[in-house]
Amino acid sequence: MHHLPDLAQFKKLLDKFDTFLFDCDGVLWRGNELIPGSKEFVDKIRKAGKDVIFVTNNASNSRNQYKQKFDQLGFKVDVDEIFSSAYASAVYLKYNLKFPSDKKVFVVGMSGLEEELDSEGIKRIGGTDPAYNKLAPHVNFKEIKQNLDKDVGAVIAGFDIMLNYTKLSYAHSYLTSPEHDVKFIFTNDDSTFPQACGVFPGSGAMSSPLAVSSKRTPIVVGKPNAPMLECILKKKQLKPERTLMIGDRLNTDIAFGQHGNVKTMLVLSGVCKKEDIIGEGIYPDYIAHSLGHIH
Amino acid sequence: MHHLPDLAQFKKLLDKFDTFLFDCDGVLWRGNELIPGSKEFVDKIRKAGKDVIFVTNNASNSRNQYKQKFDQLGFKVDVDEIFSSAYASAVYLKYNLKFPSDKKVFVVGMSGLEEELDSEGIKRIGGTDPAYNKLAPHVNFKEIKQNLDKDVGAVIAGFDIMLNYTKLSYAHSYLTSPEHDVKFIFTNDDSTFPQACGVFPGSGAMSSPLAVSSKRTPIVVGKPNAPMLECILKKKQLKPERTLMIGDRLNTDIAFGQHGNVKTMLVLSGVCKKEDIIGEGIYPDYIAHSLGHIH
Repeated sequence: MHHLPDLAQFKKLLDKFDTFLFDCDGVLWRGNELIPGSKEFVDKIRKAGKDVIFVTNNASNSRNQYKQKFDQLGFKVDVDEIFSSAYASAVYLKYNLKFPSDKKVFVVGMSGLEEELDSEGIKRIGGTDPAYNKLAPHVNFKEIKQNLDKDVGAVIAGFDIMLNYTKLSYAHSYLTSPEHDVKFIFTNDDSTFPQACGVFPGSGAMSSPLAVSSKRTPIVVGKPNAPMLECILKKKQLKPERTLMIGDRLNTDIAFGQHGNVKTMLVLSGVCKKEDIIGEGIYPDYIAHSLGHIH
Repeated sequence: MHHLPDLAQFKKLLDKFDTFLFDCDGVLWRGNELIPGSKEFVDKIRKAGKDVIFVTNNASNSRNQYKQKFDQLGFKVDVDEIFSSAYASAVYLKYNLKFPSDKKVFVVGMSGLEEELDSEGIKRIGGTDPAYNKLAPHVNFKEIKQNLDKDVGAVIAGFDIMLNYTKLSYAHSYLTSPEHDVKFIFTNDDSTFPQACGVFPGSGAMSSPLAVSSKRTPIVVGKPNAPMLECILKKKQLKPERTLMIGDRLNTDIAFGQHGNVKTMLVLSGVCKKEDIIGEGIYPDYIAHSLGHIH
């Protein structure tokens, strides 16, 4: 484990890696506040000819929606440099699971997830369609069974603030139908959804009814799980040994990099403190106070 | 393990037990169809001066609502003879957990659960109150934090067909508030909700987001867990050794009786077959084809 502020080996980093993967919150910014020096760090490695990729578990926004956050804080990024768990789920389904083009996804999620499925040309139902977003004291169970679409070949569940019993009942019916071979994907398994005023139930919590009722284990795409990094490495044709993952959370970002055999750097500008390393037993390759302390 | 149709020891049963606990579906009826001989069995043991109690995990109906099912099928029962997981949750909170009378319950559930809390004089908020039953693409997180009621001392989650993100966010906030000492109860943990046309997500599945997001373990009242039987024994002042639990499911009904050290009888008129006994490794004290085969 190298302490970068002490070694000041910024140039060695540039020699060792071609691609830098960044977690965003706690690394580039905290909430709506820029972390000093982060923008300059990204600029400097870009000028050195390096590739940058921004990795987020956020699945309620599309990459286009998420790019606005970068714009607001003055980062110049291209949509193709952003990998969200919603986008990665669409990519994983299409390329890694070779999802047939005539099949449809039943979406338990919001417009950001729908937009990413559309961007990969994947057909979809459910999601924000008003027919699936009703709150009523009576559910017509027979109608649900009769309405099942034989072309549904996957259920993808992400953060869904409009989650309701009807939508869950459709998803459950697809997942347990003996006639359908239905893939089962969670965009991520974050248990909480942090807001300025506190934390609330997250995507992994909200999707959990489907795993419980169907007795099936979903493929979880987002950090710290392996599928998202597999997608990035495959889609961007990266060499793991020339790639560095930078994040502020040991059990998501650093574990994520380690699952995919890329090198890792913990920055102390977010959630984790130095003491947590021994507590959690997850050892990054590099450690720095913040991006601003490195260059 | 005694096979009752062979032994025909109906009279011995009457000698050994004072109270008979019945699971309903699969024992007394299947869906809306009476199981032959079940009504006569109940009548006969009543005539012999025995007490009967009907035990159901159904938490969406109150006992008064559930009694209508008995009425329709011609069973004469008193509301006090019915123990649902909703009623048992109210009783457990009040008597076993000694819930203070000035505290309130935040309800994630339906009118049946509310009615049972009312019947025990327990104050409540949430539940079917329209303020907590909205489906909207935007949730005012700050407002939720500001609206928290300092008198809430428990969250009870049961089957809730109107479940939504706002209600879950309130419940999560109570469960994780450092200022409140909030008890956490699930009426039951049934993963599915059987309907005539198939199964759908059950109470345990629908409540699971709260356990995931709060990282807390609820007290689960309903079968096969111990609290419901503790309530019955306490409220009715029963002797476990003089009580028999009769059910059609090994992993709920029979396990339930065994957790509470009462004797158990499996009837084969419902879900489980004789072969399942070895498969599941749960051994009832008695086994019978159906209630009609015993007397």
